[in-house]
Amino acid sequence: MSVEATIIKMAKAARAASLAMARCPTQQKNDALLTIAHEIEASTAEIKEKNAVDLDIGKKNGLSDAMIDRLAVKDATIKSMADGLREVAGLNDPVGSTGRTWIRPNGLQVSKMRIPLGVIGIIYESRPNVTIDAAGLCLKAGNAVILKGGSEALHTNQALAACIQKALGKTGISKATVQLIPVKDREAVNMLLQQEEDIDLIIPRGGEGLIRFVVAHSKIPVLKHYKGVCHVYVDDRADLTMAEEICFNAKVQRPGVCNAMETMLVHQSIADAFLPAMALRLVQAGVEIRGCSQTCRVLKSAVSATEADWDEEYLDLTLSVKVVADIEQAMAHISTYGSRHTEAIITSDIARAKRFLREVDASAVLVNASTRFNDGGQLGLGAEIGISTSKLHAFGPMGVDELTTTKFVVYGEGQVR
Amino acid sequence: MSVEATIIKMAKAARAASLAMARCPTQQKNDALLTIAHEIEASTAEIKEKNAVDLDIGKKNGLSDAMIDRLAVKDATIKSMADGLREVAGLNDPVGSTGRTWIRPNGLQVSKMRIPLGVIGIIYESRPNVTIDAAGLCLKAGNAVILKGGSEALHTNQALAACIQKALGKTGISKATVQLIPVKDREAVNMLLQQEEDIDLIIPRGGEGLIRFVVAHSKIPVLKHYKGVCHVYVDDRADLTMAEEICFNAKVQRPGVCNAMETMLVHQSIADAFLPAMALRLVQAGVEIRGCSQTCRVLKSAVSATEADWDEEYLDLTLSVKVVADIEQAMAHISTYGSRHTEAIITSDIARAKRFLREVDASAVLVNASTRFNDGGQLGLGAEIGISTSKLHAFGPMGVDELTTTKFVVYGEGQVR
Repeated sequence: MSVEATIIKMAKAARAASLAMARCPTQQKNDALLTIAHEIEASTAEIKEKNAVDLDIGKKNGLSDAMIDRLAVKDATIKSMADGLREVAGLNDPVGSTGRTWIRPNGLQVSKMRIPLGVIGIIYESRPNVTIDAAGLCLKAGNAVILKGGSEALHTNQALAACIQKALGKTGISKATVQLIPVKDREAVNMLLQQEEDIDLIIPRGGEGLIRFVVAHSKIPVLKHYKGVCHVYVDDRADLTMAEEICFNAKVQRPGVCNAMETMLVHQSIADAFLPAMALRLVQAGVEIRGCSQTCRVLKSAVSATEADWDEEYLDLTLSVKVVADIEQAMAHISTYGSRHTEAIITSDIARAKRFLREVDASAVLVNASTRFNDGGQLGLGAEIGISTSKLHAFGPMGVDELTTTKFVVYGEGQVR
Repeated sequence: MSVEATIIKMAKAARAASLAMARCPTQQKNDALLTIAHEIEASTAEIKEKNAVDLDIGKKNGLSDAMIDRLAVKDATIKSMADGLREVAGLNDPVGSTGRTWIRPNGLQVSKMRIPLGVIGIIYESRPNVTIDAAGLCLKAGNAVILKGGSEALHTNQALAACIQKALGKTGISKATVQLIPVKDREAVNMLLQQEEDIDLIIPRGGEGLIRFVVAHSKIPVLKHYKGVCHVYVDDRADLTMAEEICFNAKVQRPGVCNAMETMLVHQSIADAFLPAMALRLVQAGVEIRGCSQTCRVLKSAVSATEADWDEEYLDLTLSVKVVADIEQAMAHISTYGSRHTEAIITSDIARAKRFLREVDASAVLVNASTRFNDGGQLGLGAEIGISTSKLHAFGPMGVDELTTTKFVVYGEGQVR
């Protein structure tokens, strides 16, 4: 069968499966999730064997150490995927719930019922855990899902998908509810993005190149984030000890993720008091500091930042630092260089805190807390399928609820217009 | 200036205006809305004069009577636009409100704050009232808006836009908050759809051709509906008098709109009791009935329906009628031919009502009420900017709330991970 015919067939099967899935009882969905968890744990040996094949090919093809590391599935990886599924099974099922009911003057009773989105396509790169995490969240929200993993992880993903298929079979759910595209072809992605009648949403997860490709070619709505250039602004009314803890955490705890701090903004009147101790601690942790001219005057060890630094998502132990005149200038800098991802202010002044919360345009804005908290699990949404920096449908971490939508349901007693 | 340069300049000006608009106080927004209402009423003579120019050109270009009718601005049209603006001024301002706050185990206080979407592009055809209605709703929700009306209404739209500009100036709001694209060129639409950095959402309003063009060419998310093929299913446990009233209303009250009934589904065991009286009343109102074989057996006057009839959005006094074995077959028909717009069941059986509400995939599902109620005003949302039949972001009527999104706001006391 051609790639085109394969993809069209999968999309139609997914649409049919999604209709049954939309009315699948919560208990059955949870059973399926727990059974997948059991199957992947019971198949640890086979999964690792298939993963070894991918790792071998990857090494021969000269993948970087970082990519090999993301590709590797260890016992702990499998345990973590299984635990994730059990956590999702424990979440509330949003499907079928209605919020408040309101009564219209003519007596109509109106409410909104939460329903699945339908069919979701997930396009991702090397990490095989996305196969399990994404399938679990989509299942819980009552959707069918089509997965297109990276070609470098094909054998591993197929082993994981086989576990999912087995578990769906055992729990009486159509196997077409979770399908993995079996070919490596890039053409398959392109074809997938054309199936607007049968697929409701595309979520790309990976580097900026992949995401821009998907946005440029998709006829289907796309939820995505390009990058996270996150700032912490240390106000002159900040508790400087707290500011130091938060900035250190936001930069150093896990520098390779999208909600890590990339630029620190410091009020001019505390620059001398704050920067030397802060910088010492960062430098001791291996951080390279690139500062504005005022920063470099205070910190002799800092490298001069160029204009390009303010735009940069380092994803590494590098930090740009800028001294600003006031909150106004801090917010202007964020407005110019921020990526609408995560922004934080450290201040004890309630008016400034409220102003920053209200005016800064980002999916999460924090007062006196680390940017690292912009995460579905940390914010209490349960597991997340990604963080959206586009405003339509979802802005910020997307959990099970964000994989659903609502319809209006209306009860009347014969009303007409 | 080239069309491209004009559009880019407008988009950048809109983005800048949207940042100020996001923090515009409610009172100032309401003042602007009321001032626009005053300006259009005070400029009735000029608006009608410009409209006469468009009508003249339209007639010379051979526009159909229906198009001329949609294009015409009368005293009542202006009154209705002004009243609409006053109604929008009276709606609650969603911007800045937060829902419930929840506390994480580490003490973080998390909530979601409603914020404007940013910049919205509206692309529409002949009706000039969209210029005012869309601008009013976008303003209330704190957005900037770029309007591209139909070339046949250009002079009228420019007169209306001039009133908006004057009112914005008088109330201290940037004139770039509402901009009308001043050229007729189709190329302008195409350019607008490329400005993904500066425009957050595109809403096309018009025929299916326009909407498909926008979806195919836009890099920006699009909220739209293609068509409304709406059904009423009359169950064997229906109050037949109620069923007759509702079906008559759904078909006849305003047949040219998207939430009018196009197909009536009738349970086989009541077909003989229900169809003759129902058909008589419809035929007396000028409705042509196209029936399935069973319908034609009962109604000698009915024309035989072809397969194409079940897919058709007549937007006219034509109705297809199908006799079905049971609710199961009714829902299967809706699943195959429905357009996810509006579906209704007439029944006194609570289990069937609940099943229909739960399982039918449409933006509004009604029990014992006319499909004509799927409308923002009728459902209590206030004015609407359109009805979405795609599930992302909004499904169903879109009011002021649907022109906003939410961001996470988090208060901590020094929390780190």
